[in-house]
Amino acid sequence: MVHYKAYLIDLDGTMYRGNEKIPGAAEFIKELNQEGIPHLFVTNNSATVPEKVAEKLMKMGIDAREEQIFNSSMAAAKYIRLMEHHAKAYVIGEEGLYSALENENIQIVDDNADYVVIGIDRGLTYEKLAKACLQIRNGAKLISTNKDVAIPTERGMVPGNGAITSVISVSTGIDPVFAGKPEPILMEQAIEKLGFSKKDVLMVGDNYDTDILAGIHSGIDTLMVETGVSTFESIKHYDEQPTYKITDLYKWKLDRK
Amino acid sequence: MVHYKAYLIDLDGTMYRGNEKIPGAAEFIKELNQEGIPHLFVTNNSATVPEKVAEKLMKMGIDAREEQIFNSSMAAAKYIRLMEHHAKAYVIGEEGLYSALENENIQIVDDNADYVVIGIDRGLTYEKLAKACLQIRNGAKLISTNKDVAIPTERGMVPGNGAITSVISVSTGIDPVFAGKPEPILMEQAIEKLGFSKKDVLMVGDNYDTDILAGIHSGIDTLMVETGVSTFESIKHYDEQPTYKITDLYKWKLDRK
Repeated sequence: MVHYKAYLIDLDGTMYRGNEKIPGAAEFIKELNQEGIPHLFVTNNSATVPEKVAEKLMKMGIDAREEQIFNSSMAAAKYIRLMEHHAKAYVIGEEGLYSALENENIQIVDDNADYVVIGIDRGLTYEKLAKACLQIRNGAKLISTNKDVAIPTERGMVPGNGAITSVISVSTGIDPVFAGKPEPILMEQAIEKLGFSKKDVLMVGDNYDTDILAGIHSGIDTLMVETGVSTFESIKHYDEQPTYKITDLYKWKLDRK
Repeated sequence: MVHYKAYLIDLDGTMYRGNEKIPGAAEFIKELNQEGIPHLFVTNNSATVPEKVAEKLMKMGIDAREEQIFNSSMAAAKYIRLMEHHAKAYVIGEEGLYSALENENIQIVDDNADYVVIGIDRGLTYEKLAKACLQIRNGAKLISTNKDVAIPTERGMVPGNGAITSVISVSTGIDPVFAGKPEPILMEQAIEKLGFSKKDVLMVGDNYDTDILAGIHSGIDTLMVETGVSTFESIKHYDEQPTYKITDLYKWKLDRK
């Protein structure tokens, strides 16, 4: 019998696509709640505060509380606070990143920063990039919320945070520390927050390159759903396979015999 | 006796540094003019129109006419015109790039472009980058004026065009065609404009990675001056050496016996 005591669950492509709920998502979460199984929603989205993400899920009929959202901005902020109390950060990003840094008591400054922290910023300007580069060259450390190079919009794929970060890493020659999936920072913090052994935690997601690799890198079991980016076909030649593959979350039974 | 019939001459680090004339530069140009030796100033600067560059040189006491300035924006524009008459271009850049494209009768558009052309743009925004990526994903070709990752300012090194271009290439997975030094596009066009055989043309510059490699890649002789970026020490282990090395342009005699 497979029985996981806690779940980490991706959002985009697993719970919803844009503003549409994915079939099976609400039922899966409902079952977790009925069984009293703790779970966190782990997302590379750095722009939105947890409160609004939970609200979006609730509106779709998917049960979620603010405390269950764990995003790459929170992971980056916690990483900095663990590295250095009273750190000063120069920020390129949106509401979710500013809020996460403030929650960890990180001082947001315009210059002389200890850390330059990058998240997706639809208000990006050359001047913001210039200030980031100048401070990296002055010794500030470069932290980026995630590696995603493109994000889907109604118009098509537009630059993601990983692409924005490349301006700074290419210009300064300094490699960033990435907080989000598939890097271990977000995952390790989320697993710790759940409070269970790794063997008891399952990572659920649609994207092999972020969700499934995040699980594999963190040493936990993984469940891939075919409702988003990756297909069984697209990953069939990969050496490291997900622990489980299902077409959609209707197929997942919490007690599998 | 070494006698070159025409010269290609770099600007920044060779003729001036910022707003300061480099010793020996004015005298060298004066001698070329006295001997009636044709020469072009070849620069990766894509932002400024030739008229203003010539004006800057003249103010420093260095003889220069507008027609003697050949920059990476002009090379990119000419490259597009040779590839396709009546091309439409979406542009990220400054005055020098817009002007160069207009001079080659390339239509500047906001969408449905055949080419996305990138030059340094101190007015860069996320929306400009998004539009560039969307059009590249729709099949537009990516042309970039140069690879320079950082440019010197009074505040320090800020992102150059090569760093800006990386957002688009990283996000779309499409490699750009670069027009400027050390790539051959600008060089070949400049050599053709001079109208002499390659064996008769000498490339003069301070930066090994742009100027000297540009000459080497184009199959012409090169003269490195130590008045800018590269030093004799910094290049001593390189396999491909400049044809000549001098500390400054006072040391160069047009007729060397």
